[in-house]
Amino acid sequence: MRYVVIMAGGSGTRLWPLSQQGAPKQLLELFHGKSLLRLAMERAVHLVEPERILVCTGKAYLDEVARQLPEIPRENLLGEPEGRDSLNAAAWPAAILRRRDPDAVMAVLSADHLIEPVENFLTSLNTAFELTEHDPTALVTFGVEPTGPETGFGYLERGDALVDYPDANAVDEFKEKPDLETARKYLDSGRYWWNSGMFVWQAACFLTELEHYLPETHTQLTRLAENPELLAEIYPKLFKTSVDYAIMEPVSHSDRAAHVVAVKLGMTWSDVGSYPVLAQQLPLNPDSSAVLGRSVSLDARNNLLINVDDDSVIAVLGLNDVVVVRTEKVTLVAPLSESQRVKELAGLVAEQVGAEFS
Amino acid sequence: MRYVVIMAGGSGTRLWPLSQQGAPKQLLELFHGKSLLRLAMERAVHLVEPERILVCTGKAYLDEVARQLPEIPRENLLGEPEGRDSLNAAAWPAAILRRRDPDAVMAVLSADHLIEPVENFLTSLNTAFELTEHDPTALVTFGVEPTGPETGFGYLERGDALVDYPDANAVDEFKEKPDLETARKYLDSGRYWWNSGMFVWQAACFLTELEHYLPETHTQLTRLAENPELLAEIYPKLFKTSVDYAIMEPVSHSDRAAHVVAVKLGMTWSDVGSYPVLAQQLPLNPDSSAVLGRSVSLDARNNLLINVDDDSVIAVLGLNDVVVVRTEKVTLVAPLSESQRVKELAGLVAEQVGAEFS
Repeated sequence: MRYVVIMAGGSGTRLWPLSQQGAPKQLLELFHGKSLLRLAMERAVHLVEPERILVCTGKAYLDEVARQLPEIPRENLLGEPEGRDSLNAAAWPAAILRRRDPDAVMAVLSADHLIEPVENFLTSLNTAFELTEHDPTALVTFGVEPTGPETGFGYLERGDALVDYPDANAVDEFKEKPDLETARKYLDSGRYWWNSGMFVWQAACFLTELEHYLPETHTQLTRLAENPELLAEIYPKLFKTSVDYAIMEPVSHSDRAAHVVAVKLGMTWSDVGSYPVLAQQLPLNPDSSAVLGRSVSLDARNNLLINVDDDSVIAVLGLNDVVVVRTEKVTLVAPLSESQRVKELAGLVAEQVGAEFS
Repeated sequence: MRYVVIMAGGSGTRLWPLSQQGAPKQLLELFHGKSLLRLAMERAVHLVEPERILVCTGKAYLDEVARQLPEIPRENLLGEPEGRDSLNAAAWPAAILRRRDPDAVMAVLSADHLIEPVENFLTSLNTAFELTEHDPTALVTFGVEPTGPETGFGYLERGDALVDYPDANAVDEFKEKPDLETARKYLDSGRYWWNSGMFVWQAACFLTELEHYLPETHTQLTRLAENPELLAEIYPKLFKTSVDYAIMEPVSHSDRAAHVVAVKLGMTWSDVGSYPVLAQQLPLNPDSSAVLGRSVSLDARNNLLINVDDDSVIAVLGLNDVVVVRTEKVTLVAPLSESQRVKELAGLVAEQVGAEFS
């Protein structure tokens, strides 16, 4: 059977103060009242029944995730006592699914991006599921056709296309985030895709590779799948690493039966992890400001005005190209062009005022 | 006996959103936790006992005034059902004091300004009290030596100095707020003082003039002093006018026994009715921003950051010369140079979001 695991960990400090400890980026209901996680689930229900969707998130967010995703059975919501990077967020559910269904084929999706059009995303996912069902040794990763020399993503160097799946290629090499010059070369060569950090595989195949490369992690996660009450004991001690580092890269260089395949995601892909990108996703007021929540503008244009503090209003006069965010505890004001520095500002707030405000 | 009446009406929309309906300018605790009204009372207790201080304010503010001024007996706090300008705010207490004490000498002070040094202010007040006790027909107004061609104040044209009081002069003419050219002439001539809108007189003398110029107002306020329960009936029907228009100007041109004397207030005088002026009164943070309440700045200088919303923080990054105000209901952001337009912005907020936010 097919399953979907949505990874929804992480805190996303680039959208501070929206993304505070209690509300990481993927839980913010910024998109017509929906969060990125909710949108990820709404995509996933086109692939599998809600009963076969699992969500791996931080323990502290479990209640909020349950509120936002009432369709998902509560036992499918996995709460990490602390983040142990993507390997464990993928392998813990894999171990659970293998116990439930030895033939489980699972997609591991992230909740970090806006994805459009959804149809293309679903087509790529279905291709990957089919491919993995026919070839139980395939570990599928997804690539996105680059639209610019991005230095914020890892890249996949494509090998030969697969005979039966024109949108699927072998992977010659995983590349870490490049510098700008290297990113330009990748773009010009036409042989690289952005590494999406999403996967499809047979749970059993993935866990076999895990057992090979990280046997202790495999042992502990197998124990945990059998005894969920061991979570607090086992999880914090797991080796913290990514799927790519621990499994995909070594497999791509090995002679093992398992092999890596990249399937193309034919879609645009917005990491709404910064204010300028978020601004592009919000409706505009008559003064061309992107707005969420209550605000009023007077001779103020092209701003980003986000008010998530109920029963309040943001009033801006005579300023352009700024971001103003009002949450229950924080008012942020900055030029949009400098908004990538909010993480630094959040650090200063923690230091000068108190961690509860950052 | 000497008495002090503090006039604390008015709403001060130039400091919106600080001065909202529930908290007019003079009640905002902006100065080391004290309001302008509280500071006015602390000056007044150097002149008379708290039992002989009266405050005339809006009915809606009585509880807040009582909280800020616990030293003042509650029966000395007079609440206007609606504002009827300075004449009535001075004459209502005068009528009450004449009943209490036929020989009452009263100072009528405003709570609108920061005054420094307080010693000079007290010296001027004592001079005026003494002068009025010796000359029961004197109506004293106070003048401030101009430091620039201000167009926002009325002016007093000085006549001859009084023989016994070198800091007191007859008044030849009351002048309304001038245009800039006229203000420059006033300044150059050296014969004009700013009209402070503060007064000292014998209650009986003032009320005699009131009876002469506005007999119906005198009749009604005399009735009100005898029957406080008539407040709601009498007060809203009173003729709305200022002390200068109704009494001081006509007396200055008349042959009546009463006569106007101007006493010099040897002090600086800040109308903290705008954000740039308020900024000058607040302490500076290491980035030269004037601050009140919790805020954090990163590469942001010369701002005015006012946070009166408990348990929150203002965080500003990369912006200079702006005012950011956070109240429980509003976040205001504007360049300091445009902050005089907040009244207009408040109107827009009332229209677009609701009057409860303006």
